[in-house]
Amino acid sequence: MTVLYLEDLVPGRRFAGGTRIRIEESRIKSFAAEFDPQPFHLDQAAAGSSIFQGLAASGWHTASVTMRLLVDSEFKPAGGIVGAGFDELRWPLPVRPGDELHVESEVLEVRPSKSRPGQGLVKVRTTTLNQDGKAVQIFTGNLVVRRRPGVTQKV
Amino acid sequence: MTVLYLEDLVPGRRFAGGTRIRIEESRIKSFAAEFDPQPFHLDQAAAGSSIFQGLAASGWHTASVTMRLLVDSEFKPAGGIVGAGFDELRWPLPVRPGDELHVESEVLEVRPSKSRPGQGLVKVRTTTLNQDGKAVQIFTGNLVVRRRPGVTQKV
Repeated sequence: MTVLYLEDLVPGRRFAGGTRIRIEESRIKSFAAEFDPQPFHLDQAAAGSSIFQGLAASGWHTASVTMRLLVDSEFKPAGGIVGAGFDELRWPLPVRPGDELHVESEVLEVRPSKSRPGQGLVKVRTTTLNQDGKAVQIFTGNLVVRRRPGVTQKV
Repeated sequence: MTVLYLEDLVPGRRFAGGTRIRIEESRIKSFAAEFDPQPFHLDQAAAGSSIFQGLAASGWHTASVTMRLLVDSEFKPAGGIVGAGFDELRWPLPVRPGDELHVESEVLEVRPSKSRPGQGLVKVRTTTLNQDGKAVQIFTGNLVVRRRPGVTQKV
């Protein structure tokens, strides 16, 4: 496992997700019961007549699973994956019981910090795909990443 | 409980969150173990030397708790709270063990859909505050909300 510093991240660099997570119906319902108790996340019958036309995972469940897939992926920035905020978060398709999700990430921008010389911001787009290769979530986040030790002194 | 249609939502209308949720250290750690297993969310000692300078909830935990607070709030749009996507999601301050969170929401924009006459998009900013009244999360989302039945025929 290679830890990545700001200097290792360049626009266009891609990272594959190593693992897949299967979304079980029971976890869709238990996650929703705690965090998003709306009928279309809790009950098959009620979900059928909703905008989702069937049971669908809470978007926050999908986002949380995506974070797990990202932490387990090849993308290992120094200091961890620390989000400063997001530019975009969309759920183009619902996540259904039995779906198997994986992620792909791409670096879009790298900016050394002016006020904090030891770190920078990296804009990364992470796409969460289902077993058919269709995007169920797209998010573009700005992450805080450390510069390589020693580099800051030289610049 | 009054269900709100697109016509009921006007820019500037605010909704208070009725409940508070206390974030327990054990739940910070168990959420992180499942969805965001990084040292600063799992272990006090490791968290002390991280960017968070102490144990902090995963941002996705905060986002999920915020959703629960929103579902339990006065904001009850017809068809449920269904996010089409987000314009902004930020975590200005870490959430610490023992913090008590609540939400406040404000309608920013209302747009009837051109392609789907029975619904529209409502831009809502939801701020999650801790017991000191400080914002720990700000998110601005675009929600799909139904028009009042009968109104579409008249327009």
